[in-house]
Amino acid sequence: MTELRNTTVSDVGEAALIARIAERIPTAPAGEVWSGDDAAFVTTPTRLLITTDMLVEGVDFDLRYASGADVGFKAMAANASDIAGMCGRPLHGVCAVTLRGDLRLSWVEGLLDGLVEGAERWGIALVGGDVGGGRDISVAVTVTGEPVGREPVFRSGAEAGDALCVTGCLGGARAGLAVLRRNLSGGSLEALARLQLRGNARVAEAAALAEVRPSAMLDVSDGLAVDLGRLLDASNAGCEVEGGAVPPCPGIDELDGVDPRETAILGGEDFELLFSIREDRLAAAADAVGAVGTSVTRIGTVTRGPERVVDGTPLEEWRRRGWHHLTR
Amino acid sequence: MTELRNTTVSDVGEAALIARIAERIPTAPAGEVWSGDDAAFVTTPTRLLITTDMLVEGVDFDLRYASGADVGFKAMAANASDIAGMCGRPLHGVCAVTLRGDLRLSWVEGLLDGLVEGAERWGIALVGGDVGGGRDISVAVTVTGEPVGREPVFRSGAEAGDALCVTGCLGGARAGLAVLRRNLSGGSLEALARLQLRGNARVAEAAALAEVRPSAMLDVSDGLAVDLGRLLDASNAGCEVEGGAVPPCPGIDELDGVDPRETAILGGEDFELLFSIREDRLAAAADAVGAVGTSVTRIGTVTRGPERVVDGTPLEEWRRRGWHHLTR
Repeated sequence: MTELRNTTVSDVGEAALIARIAERIPTAPAGEVWSGDDAAFVTTPTRLLITTDMLVEGVDFDLRYASGADVGFKAMAANASDIAGMCGRPLHGVCAVTLRGDLRLSWVEGLLDGLVEGAERWGIALVGGDVGGGRDISVAVTVTGEPVGREPVFRSGAEAGDALCVTGCLGGARAGLAVLRRNLSGGSLEALARLQLRGNARVAEAAALAEVRPSAMLDVSDGLAVDLGRLLDASNAGCEVEGGAVPPCPGIDELDGVDPRETAILGGEDFELLFSIREDRLAAAADAVGAVGTSVTRIGTVTRGPERVVDGTPLEEWRRRGWHHLTR
Repeated sequence: MTELRNTTVSDVGEAALIARIAERIPTAPAGEVWSGDDAAFVTTPTRLLITTDMLVEGVDFDLRYASGADVGFKAMAANASDIAGMCGRPLHGVCAVTLRGDLRLSWVEGLLDGLVEGAERWGIALVGGDVGGGRDISVAVTVTGEPVGREPVFRSGAEAGDALCVTGCLGGARAGLAVLRRNLSGGSLEALARLQLRGNARVAEAAALAEVRPSAMLDVSDGLAVDLGRLLDASNAGCEVEGGAVPPCPGIDELDGVDPRETAILGGEDFELLFSIREDRLAAAADAVGAVGTSVTRIGTVTRGPERVVDGTPLEEWRRRGWHHLTR
């Protein structure tokens, strides 16, 4: 391969770029066609999950911090996390990318590496894509999946008395943005930055939960306050959440001026699973998820409502302060 | 509904916008979930086509000419056309949209109308989406489909001696851009402008062709020269195309300084079907497509190659002059 450092997207053009993408797409199994035609042709189960999520330069990522590989990986993570949030397993993915003509080809190679790495990480067969020009970089991924059990777990099944739980820890990606902006280093701080840059998806944890059947579940993409509100809205229920029980990610407490509890309640892009489950299944859920190396923390209880209280404050107050796209 | 004319996207925020989108998504049949969860959950056949295509402001559409409804409709058209190009029938669609905060809500309502209208036009069940902020508007649609016959028609099956054919007429969308820029009016000119603004998809025509089995097919999205090259590359074949046989759209000849034949050979976004077919099936193909109201024109013949000639000129020369994304 020739020196690519100063080669730009418009130097090579669309055809060469598509060829580079096609090189990274594995050969399809017999009877399937992945890249190289108008559409991919694949074999799927008859009950299919479909989700789509787009990352946009300047809004969802910042080229001062994020490499191409980070962006590609995170685009796959965000979509795999949505499938996990349904208690599903990812199957196939397609990706529509817009690139600026002045972008270095090496950045684009990194993006492709990240897409492929993310796809492999969560078992997504990357079967096709589209590439075009734009004034900003954007990466729109669509992923299909299948429920691990017979049915997906929806947001709408929480019942009064169910335990409210989260996997892992919260607030890490939001704190990671502060780490990047302040240019800090150190073990747990770098882990926070990495979470912000690359995201995550709790696919193995969702599969582990399938047997114990949460009553409702979703992934925490816009912060606990916003996503808990969604689960309770869909289930027509209330809640009582202990602020002290919400698990902030390790390292947040090392950041000056950042409140770990508030960050855990409001921070977006955690990509953890938030679920409700019958109290007598809680131990089994913690065991199953623990077996794949991830903790489960009970943060509170679903109530009949209408009161929804988080750390002594109405959820609606938290929710207004949470992450909302498009708002000034 | 209150006066929306001066309301912007950031005035209402993401939640209200998603609610407006959800209103337009029909209720899912029993056992399926469309909008309102992390992913849609649908019933599909086991052999599935998947395609994705993104439209970006300033590159694929221009707000001086295109309404929101035009953009939404065209995004669905481009994807439906890819499914048609596989000899498929569209099934489900999802849409990831980025919006500028300063965008009028009425424009966004138009966009949603256009997406829904396009989905209905081509039988796509619009089952979910994602909305976020960006500096440009972009609309990334992913559509699934199923082959109308037992198998899709790929690009790779053309054989020496097959007739090369196109549905409808070519060059219309490219000529339509000239109509818009010159602000011209008149019946056939407005039809050209409409093709540029809204696109098309030959879904009924693809279904009609399924029985007579083209040997190879794709949709003409980047112009005849570029897409013919793709079909021949995939089939490892040559061609002999009569320039005079390539059908330019009516009205192109009314445009000063626009050569109808060249425009038909080079113009992109025609969304017609280009296919090769055994000569003894040509009449049946024309009859089948004619029955749904669209013409089939034989433009030439597939040869063993390596020569590829279009209107007396090597295809590679035409191809270099054709539409290439991302190139300066």
